[in-house]
Amino acid sequence: MKTINIKEKYELFNDYWKPRVVAELNNQQVIIAKVKGEFIWHDHKDEDELFNVIKGKLRMEFRDKVVEVNEGEMIIVPRGVEHRPVAEEETWLLLFEPLSTKHTGDVNSKRTVKKYPRI
Amino acid sequence: MKTINIKEKYELFNDYWKPRVVAELNNQQVIIAKVKGEFIWHDHKDEDELFNVIKGKLRMEFRDKVVEVNEGEMIIVPRGVEHRPVAEEETWLLLFEPLSTKHTGDVNSKRTVKKYPRI
Repeated sequence: MKTINIKEKYELFNDYWKPRVVAELNNQQVIIAKVKGEFIWHDHKDEDELFNVIKGKLRMEFRDKVVEVNEGEMIIVPRGVEHRPVAEEETWLLLFEPLSTKHTGDVNSKRTVKKYPRI
Repeated sequence: MKTINIKEKYELFNDYWKPRVVAELNNQQVIIAKVKGEFIWHDHKDEDELFNVIKGKLRMEFRDKVVEVNEGEMIIVPRGVEHRPVAEEETWLLLFEPLSTKHTGDVNSKRTVKKYPRI
């Protein structure tokens, strides 16, 4: 039963779009990622996904609109909803999602990470 | 699909130990609370509970030790583990836990909140 310091965890890596697991509970995982640029369109059929912007700004694109998520804000992307995260500048994200959530849903891309390392 | 600004949500209330639900996803809820002073000993038989300290400092007491959780840190209290949250000064918490989680587990107290309001 130790504390987890999120900001310290971000200092441990510098690659973009490569999630790291920092905690697991109730079949859910807490993930952090640094992102910059555009990701790929995907959805998660059975999982809602919470994005919390720790630093920077996230532009969450949906097929019919765009939502700007500023530092200190969160957004929940409901299951089945196609989305594409974009960040102009380096942005730090914290995500809550079920363990079953695949990085890019049913889309297989060279950018897909199959298993997130624990840090 | 709107953004949620956690810090703005904290401005909406001032009572201690009265959780508010700010989001739900995957049968989990995101809760915020302001706390100050000592809470009561309890556990949650079937639910792990994540505490994230947004502001202030949390002193999480267990039967065999005490863990200080500073601003920006989180701690997960595993299911079945008795705990007592304590805060010397006003502290802002964000919790992530299953919808089934009862405020004070099987302990019924005048401080128990049966249903958390959504804000």
